[in-house]
Amino acid sequence: MQLPYLTASSRVRMSPFTARVEAAGVQAYTTYNHMLLPTIFRSPLEDYAHLKSAVQVWDVAGERQVEIRGPDALKLVQMTTPRDISRMKDDQCFYIPNVDENGGMMNDPVLLKLDAERYWVSLADSDMLYYYKGLANGLGLNVEIFEPDVSPLAVQGPKAGTLIGRVFGEDVVATRFFRHTQVEIAGKPMVIARSGWSLQGGFEIYLEGSEHGEHLWDLLFDAGADLDVRAGCPCTIERIEGGLLSYGNDMTLEHTPFEAGLGKYCNLDTATSCLGHAALVQKREPTRQIRPVEISGDAVPALRAPWPVSTPSGEPVGFVSSAAWSPDFNTNVAIAMVDRAHWTAGTELQVQTPAGLQGLLVRDRYWV
Amino acid sequence: MQLPYLTASSRVRMSPFTARVEAAGVQAYTTYNHMLLPTIFRSPLEDYAHLKSAVQVWDVAGERQVEIRGPDALKLVQMTTPRDISRMKDDQCFYIPNVDENGGMMNDPVLLKLDAERYWVSLADSDMLYYYKGLANGLGLNVEIFEPDVSPLAVQGPKAGTLIGRVFGEDVVATRFFRHTQVEIAGKPMVIARSGWSLQGGFEIYLEGSEHGEHLWDLLFDAGADLDVRAGCPCTIERIEGGLLSYGNDMTLEHTPFEAGLGKYCNLDTATSCLGHAALVQKREPTRQIRPVEISGDAVPALRAPWPVSTPSGEPVGFVSSAAWSPDFNTNVAIAMVDRAHWTAGTELQVQTPAGLQGLLVRDRYWV
Repeated sequence: MQLPYLTASSRVRMSPFTARVEAAGVQAYTTYNHMLLPTIFRSPLEDYAHLKSAVQVWDVAGERQVEIRGPDALKLVQMTTPRDISRMKDDQCFYIPNVDENGGMMNDPVLLKLDAERYWVSLADSDMLYYYKGLANGLGLNVEIFEPDVSPLAVQGPKAGTLIGRVFGEDVVATRFFRHTQVEIAGKPMVIARSGWSLQGGFEIYLEGSEHGEHLWDLLFDAGADLDVRAGCPCTIERIEGGLLSYGNDMTLEHTPFEAGLGKYCNLDTATSCLGHAALVQKREPTRQIRPVEISGDAVPALRAPWPVSTPSGEPVGFVSSAAWSPDFNTNVAIAMVDRAHWTAGTELQVQTPAGLQGLLVRDRYWV
Repeated sequence: MQLPYLTASSRVRMSPFTARVEAAGVQAYTTYNHMLLPTIFRSPLEDYAHLKSAVQVWDVAGERQVEIRGPDALKLVQMTTPRDISRMKDDQCFYIPNVDENGGMMNDPVLLKLDAERYWVSLADSDMLYYYKGLANGLGLNVEIFEPDVSPLAVQGPKAGTLIGRVFGEDVVATRFFRHTQVEIAGKPMVIARSGWSLQGGFEIYLEGSEHGEHLWDLLFDAGADLDVRAGCPCTIERIEGGLLSYGNDMTLEHTPFEAGLGKYCNLDTATSCLGHAALVQKREPTRQIRPVEISGDAVPALRAPWPVSTPSGEPVGFVSSAAWSPDFNTNVAIAMVDRAHWTAGTELQVQTPAGLQGLLVRDRYWV
């Protein structure tokens, strides 16, 4: 299918990197937290192969931050997540499910602790700022909550460490996974984390001050020319291969963290102040859950809405939420929500794609 | 500029009308509340001329509803708006600024009262569901809050009444402006309002039950063939001519309703339970405010970010938030936020567009 165009407005914000992204030849976007998020540069397959072999710079400014600061900051964040964050270190990043009073997932951000009274919630695509403000206003908490002028730029790929080392030094490269440290950009200290939405390794630089965006971009490209550094973007194929979930695709407000396979981030014994705690205690044994699944046959088309999954006799048992053809694994890699009676690895099911009925095999693990 | 493409994912949801919209030849979309919103069918100018002369059917399902029901529903909604909603009739629609504790605008929805304990908040583009849930959870209010399966379909244009009369009867056509009544679709009673985001007159049908979307679409097109009914969409040119604001473009969380020129919807004497009340009392005399402005010279390019407005000597005094070439008025129609010292009608300023410096004239009123 010919893709539709995306029209311009300032409601769908440009990022501090958009001018460079467009000079690099971006062909397509999606939107994310009311901001442009690049999705194709050369082609999906070429971008994929390059991500796995070299190093890419990703404009992920759409991962907007909610800054929460003040004496009640920890209390407020803990009310929104079943993961116990009480012992986070000041340089830690925690992947946290955000849940509502029913235990339904509202977002799955990375929480950065900056100090005891200051956090950044690095968002997936929903306005968690509004939930935090509502809770804080309702409870009269002593916090400030706002979206700071902070825009993540990811450096991902097997040569990411080499590039980061050249620009920021080997001490930064030695940062542990899901920890953050500081670098100096345009004379200002800024946060850099060992993190990113790929399995290829890398870093996320939290640019503070939109006016420095092109300077940061140029620093990376000037230092990485011989590494074949390119503009890239989150890669649907690669993130499915690695089992990285996408909020709004693989899980929504209709699903609990247990259904999303995120039970290991639910500390129900200690995170009792989470407002979804009672609901999650009730729902800790899910009747459906996310599974890696393989779809046989031809390369699947782009997924625009969940695809119904059924047994060979036609009984509905779930849906596929993400799918793509993987050149490296020579099959369609996919993520599905599958009912308990059918979620055992090895179960053969079928899926209704826009191209017709295709076979579906439940797997025991992701591909990488 | 060649427009970029928009890639598919189920995170950016299709609507109950998307299949018909695509069969009708949609060329471009934007996204709105995590859903596809059509923006171009034949061309912006052809769509504009047709809207003003015939009748169009608009997929505005992206105007998602927040349903709030229960004994505390009125109390909760009133906490989020400075407009006094205490005397709303059960068939009324109110345009309400939604504000935070600072009086900053969070959304500008249309509120539909369904009964004393049941409201729909028909949203502009931000997740107000999350703010309502946060407040209700923080305060322990007795309400249910959820996104119902309701998708507005607008019928707009000078022949909208004729088409609605044929399909639903003359009693429906007689509905007063910003009132709602009921129609039967697929055997089910559904809400229809005399409203819509154009100055051409029309109705918004609140489809309940996604499975009936194509049936409703077909009813309208079958009845309107001789009226030249076409698929259309909100028209930037027409809505600027008429002074209809766009949340996220013309005002954001950074602006009060007074700055947005919405002071008439602020009942500060009676809506004292609005959480932004104290802030708005302080800010009732704004130092900047939205103005209709005319931009001289060639047709302006698409606006992707606010354009800086300055005095002839270069002093910054505001920004243009929406702009388009108007064939009917043979000029560039625009909306700008202008500082008090320069907002008097007749003031000559200048604006930095991507095409260069162009003259800007502050007007006393919109074009229609």
